Amino acid sequence: MRIDIITVVPELLRSPFEASIMKRAIEKGLVDVHFHNLRDYTTNKYKSVDDYPYGGGAGMVMMVEPIDKCITQLKSERDYDEIIYMTPDGETLHQGMANAMSLYENIIILCGHYKGVDQRVRDHFITKEISIGDYVLSGGELGALVLADALIRLIPGVLSDETSALTDSFQDNLLSPPIYTRPADYKGWKVPDVLLSGHAAKIDQWREEKAFEHTKNRRPDLLDR
Amino acid sequence: MRIDIITVVPELLRSPFEASIMKRAIEKGLVDVHFHNLRDYTTNKYKSVDDYPYGGGAGMVMMVEPIDKCITQLKSERDYDEIIYMTPDGETLHQGMANAMSLYENIIILCGHYKGVDQRVRDHFITKEISIGDYVLSGGELGALVLADALIRLIPGVLSDETSALTDSFQDNLLSPPIYTRPADYKGWKVPDVLLSGHAAKIDQWREEKAFEHTKNRRPDLLDR
Repeated sequence: MRIDIITVVPELLRSPFEASIMKRAIEKGLVDVHFHNLRDYTTNKYKSVDDYPYGGGAGMVMMVEPIDKCITQLKSERDYDEIIYMTPDGETLHQGMANAMSLYENIIILCGHYKGVDQRVRDHFITKEISIGDYVLSGGELGALVLADALIRLIPGVLSDETSALTDSFQDNLLSPPIYTRPADYKGWKVPDVLLSGHAAKIDQWREEKAFEHTKNRRPDLLDR
Repeated sequence: MRIDIITVVPELLRSPFEASIMKRAIEKGLVDVHFHNLRDYTTNKYKSVDDYPYGGGAGMVMMVEPIDKCITQLKSERDYDEIIYMTPDGETLHQGMANAMSLYENIIILCGHYKGVDQRVRDHFITKEISIGDYVLSGGELGALVLADALIRLIPGVLSDETSALTDSFQDNLLSPPIYTRPADYKGWKVPDVLLSGHAAKIDQWREEKAFEHTKNRRPDLLDR
């Protein structure tokens, strides 16, 4: 998968791609991530990418032109499955979307900043608008990181243990059951006996019951999907 | 606000705090962010922080002891409003939660990694479990960044334009109306006349109508809240 991220603060994105699973995926050649600094696509001498909103009001708006130039150049080089804009009023990301999108070959992620992008960018260039949740962030960059991570970890070969992703929360509309590791007794807090029993069928049954119970308590909405 | 983040990959968190709004908030002394590397709290010679799950299964589990040591030390130094664990089965973050939490003085954010933390950590140390959405990430670090950003931008003095945060999506259960900036005509794509009219009352009315219409189309659930 190739991911092109368009941003006004490329330096913000650096460290998460240089650590942990995203780093390994890039090193293994399973993912190719490119940052594009919008300021490199400006034509004015101040390299400004934003301007005041028409009609007044607080905050700055990202201009059409540099975004047009950047997206148009990328599209001339290859085909993209989606040109995504991260925005709190987009479709809320969920695991099913991540599963489907993890099969894409090329995507562009445009990060908004300030009050967002000129509406004409959304009307004419964007094919999918995604929100990571019902809260406002200072820019789309953290959303882009979240989306990239959610997709990248699903690409075969990225996680060291292939079965690990399949037992995650949401993959079967159930939250995960409680997990424990050594020691069996820590300051008097004990691991449930069944997990120490070595009885695989009983352990599976306990986990299923706990996952169901936990989901019913915390997220009964998931059980109706 | 002081934010202590406990993680096994502190290097992942670096660049977002060194850029943009989070950087400015730290430079202005409005926020104080500390990373704690869990490996510094291990007692075994390999500095390992995780172990195999009791009962078998894929993935590794983060052990109680280093987390206990780290949290206990922090709690001996000051009082915390919440000790938060980022996990997909936590309470889903929304703007109302962010508003309330932006008033906190001290918080700890524990980032899970691998399959998560030993359940006893959650039972005995954590006071609040938060999810940023219904998807699985490779660790809690991106969730911690999202939470930190959502809170920090609400602290008075962080955003340069105080009124900016109040007009964001979700603050009044409405999505934002479309925004435009110069030029008024870009390749034949025009800005709506009303925004160029200079008639403040008409502009306000247009924005209100558009915000309502947009919310009704995309997120009718917000209108019922």
